[in-house]
Amino acid sequence: MDYIRNHWYVAGFASEFGEAFTTATILEEDIVLYRIADGSVVAFEDRCPHRALPLSMGKRIGDQLQCGYHGLTFGTDGQCVRVPGQRSVPPQAWVRKYPTHERHGIVWIWMGAAEAADTDLVFDMPELDHPAWGVTQGEALEFESNYLNVADNLCDPAHVSFVHPTTLGSPASEDVPIRARRKGRVIEISRWIRNNAPIGFFQAHGGFSGNVDRWHYYYLHAPCIAVIDFGSADTTLALPEERRGEGIQIYALHFMTPVNATRTIDRWMHLRNTAVDDPAAGQKISDLLRVAFAEDKAILEAVQRKELQPRDRPPVRVAIDAGANHYRRVVDEMLAAERVQAAAE
Amino acid sequence: MDYIRNHWYVAGFASEFGEAFTTATILEEDIVLYRIADGSVVAFEDRCPHRALPLSMGKRIGDQLQCGYHGLTFGTDGQCVRVPGQRSVPPQAWVRKYPTHERHGIVWIWMGAAEAADTDLVFDMPELDHPAWGVTQGEALEFESNYLNVADNLCDPAHVSFVHPTTLGSPASEDVPIRARRKGRVIEISRWIRNNAPIGFFQAHGGFSGNVDRWHYYYLHAPCIAVIDFGSADTTLALPEERRGEGIQIYALHFMTPVNATRTIDRWMHLRNTAVDDPAAGQKISDLLRVAFAEDKAILEAVQRKELQPRDRPPVRVAIDAGANHYRRVVDEMLAAERVQAAAE
Amino acid sequence: MDYIRNHWYVAGFASEFGEAFTTATILEEDIVLYRIADGSVVAFEDRCPHRALPLSMGKRIGDQLQCGYHGLTFGTDGQCVRVPGQRSVPPQAWVRKYPTHERHGIVWIWMGAAEAADTDLVFDMPELDHPAWGVTQGEALEFESNYLNVADNLCDPAHVSFVHPTTLGSPASEDVPIRARRKGRVIEISRWIRNNAPIGFFQAHGGFSGNVDRWHYYYLHAPCIAVIDFGSADTTLALPEERRGEGIQIYALHFMTPVNATRTIDRWMHLRNTAVDDPAAGQKISDLLRVAFAEDKAILEAVQRKELQPRDRPPVRVAIDAGANHYRRVVDEMLAAERVQAAAE
Repeated sequence: MDYIRNHWYVAGFASEFGEAFTTATILEEDIVLYRIADGSVVAFEDRCPHRALPLSMGKRIGDQLQCGYHGLTFGTDGQCVRVPGQRSVPPQAWVRKYPTHERHGIVWIWMGAAEAADTDLVFDMPELDHPAWGVTQGEALEFESNYLNVADNLCDPAHVSFVHPTTLGSPASEDVPIRARRKGRVIEISRWIRNNAPIGFFQAHGGFSGNVDRWHYYYLHAPCIAVIDFGSADTTLALPEERRGEGIQIYALHFMTPVNATRTIDRWMHLRNTAVDDPAAGQKISDLLRVAFAEDKAILEAVQRKELQPRDRPPVRVAIDAGANHYRRVVDEMLAAERVQAAAE
Repeated sequence: MDYIRNHWYVAGFASEFGEAFTTATILEEDIVLYRIADGSVVAFEDRCPHRALPLSMGKRIGDQLQCGYHGLTFGTDGQCVRVPGQRSVPPQAWVRKYPTHERHGIVWIWMGAAEAADTDLVFDMPELDHPAWGVTQGEALEFESNYLNVADNLCDPAHVSFVHPTTLGSPASEDVPIRARRKGRVIEISRWIRNNAPIGFFQAHGGFSGNVDRWHYYYLHAPCIAVIDFGSADTTLALPEERRGEGIQIYALHFMTPVNATRTIDRWMHLRNTAVDDPAAGQKISDLLRVAFAEDKAILEAVQRKELQPRDRPPVRVAIDAGANHYRRVVDEMLAAERVQAAAE
Repeated sequence: MDYIRNHWYVAGFASEFGEAFTTATILEEDIVLYRIADGSVVAFEDRCPHRALPLSMGKRIGDQLQCGYHGLTFGTDGQCVRVPGQRSVPPQAWVRKYPTHERHGIVWIWMGAAEAADTDLVFDMPELDHPAWGVTQGEALEFESNYLNVADNLCDPAHVSFVHPTTLGSPASEDVPIRARRKGRVIEISRWIRNNAPIGFFQAHGGFSGNVDRWHYYYLHAPCIAVIDFGSADTTLALPEERRGEGIQIYALHFMTPVNATRTIDRWMHLRNTAVDDPAAGQKISDLLRVAFAEDKAILEAVQRKELQPRDRPPVRVAIDAGANHYRRVVDEMLAAERVQAAAE
């Protein structure tokens, strides 16, 4: 499978990394990660250049990494500093080092050329550090489905009525059209369902006594990050789009890490503008999302299995695919740009 | 693997189908089946033409089938009748519908061009509805072996002495030659073992006090149905072939459904001309056959595993292969005829 | 994978064979073995030439082997002697017979052309039958790694310090250089660690009160047999190489049987020149080796998994690879010689 390489992917939540080795497979590359003495997380190709043993089967010598087969030892720049049994170290004895960066409780890894790793490009969202928002970290959810399928689902309000009828959606929204547009590498999909009963979650926790206006705004940052703004407001307020923050607003964030052509890890978290200091409120939202994401998982894995079978005619495309159509086009453009760049080098 | 498509295959015993969705894989095609309000079983390609989700993961809306991902809904003719989020339905939004027919407690499915599905071609056997015969339905037995190997075994009296020495055969038959002939698409193999002790089953339930004449008649209807007539009669009667119905006669029926290149489902049932109103007698025969078919299963699955390995010389053919030779030739002719027809269209 | 065929491989310890069928896969060939009346072990291709059923699913008729599907029966020369249902036996009805030879409690099998099977070429080691040595048979250890990787590890003293730091090695030996040379098809690697504390095993069972000189001599007989001489002597004796037999000396023997491109069975045993009549001493050594070999297994299986992945640059080679470099060259020469011979025939 082709992947966009010049991109900051999520290696893991910061809490997943410590002194011991952590391993990850990202874009089909096996990686070993650990925190060194200065607190930063280093990431290396998980393969000794000598006999190919995963370096994660070795041990740390201070900040250095020693292979468990013959003791070749690598410094924090990836260069070999010791080959037992000989005095000199061959210059080609090095392991690839991946740039990393920690922000918002997440460790990011740059999978492209190291010299292009600009930390200004790491995903940022000021609300994650703002006292007006309550932030709750979710989990690393593994899908046996590739990142394109997972991303399609994250710019797709239309599935909510059918896949999540008891949690995030309701039949009332089945035929509400979507609005889709693209801004650079961000696909924005939205729709409003006005003057309707609140959905499952907001019924229980929104404190609404009557009908609500509710919205979905999906911001899919190609290739692998989705920010989903959904909320509800008393319908009598008749809030316009730009003032929806006066209602109850939740952001669900999804950080997809492509493992290989049929597997994706989706690390999720969420923010809320209500009960910001109440961890129990965060847990309630997590519980809701956990149910919904399990519903997505069943669908996306079945879709992946079917995609691996031969098909005799092209898929039918319909209006609700507008977001996915934009997304696939952006990804294709990014892949093409990387191919052009690679050919030029 | 190549399959004969213009053929009525068994989708299942009638009892396997109801209001809920049933799924089956036949000739490598995933199919969803259910009974509609008029009592008939409908069968569709188990894949939404939109995003490929198996339609069996959706739900029924009356007799219609609604996809569980985005709610596309299909009528009983396979044509899409609703696409949520838009008014019109694109004409290419349809799923393949397979003709079905129910007869003798079996649901048959036509895997070829729908316009060629002639219900006169559905397998018929008048004894199945005749009061002189007791009918007992067996089970769906899954073989990890392709249908050609399973069929070979169903026109092969010679294996009985070695694979089923304690149930269906005995060493006395080891060297009795077989008679093989072909009538159109039916291969008929037979042999008689005269004046010998009854085999396991007939010893226990035949009520014979002395030796018997016993017979096997295998009628293999290419590609996938076998009717096996076996029985015993008191040897002093010296019954000729055409009067063997005066002895104790059992028909074992096998309906093979090819799943893929290494898997076959064999649904079996049997008829008897004795104790026709005694279900316990039917169960005794089922018990006997269940033991024997487990013996076949071990053999046929091992043969399949070996066939998947490379071999350095052609198989040796011997006289007892006459039935299988006829069968393979008929299948090759049928496949060739379908290729010719496909090329002409 | 390419294998050297004209070679005596180990089919198993003699104790693994009896009247019942034993099966083995060697060089990707399935083989059935059993002891006939004269006490010898016969070995045949485990596939009936008729319908390919493994002959090991059949039964013995005296020394003959009867297929479990249709009763074809094969004599001890592999030629078919009976085809039920017909009088004559087609001449092409035979199974390949592999030459075997039993020596030192091991059954050897020749995988090449039968006429080239010279029993003088079977591995011999006089100490195995000499009263000055205590012999203990080990186990059949299965590695999910090919024989080349396993063999590399058996001419590699350098890994001992890192893979077996608590059993067979110690950090003291990490930088001691190795001596490597090739004598025909035998690669000999050695090193001495002088005047150092005894390693785990010799600490416990050597009875040493002070420092020792310890040695490793690896004799790797390409392609598949390793004899490893390791021992310790009181350092005050200052034993020269040729008198090391005056110290405590252990031979570990490894007989590798290549199963396929990713699997090897390593049958091991060992000899000692101390406590030769004490089985408990042999068991202690076995216990030690069992721990060490489990450490090797983890490493070699991980290396195999990584080798199956694509790699973007050639492996780095270092000084301690001298033994493996020699070994791989000998194997390549042997394979090339067999190709030349095959082309000439």
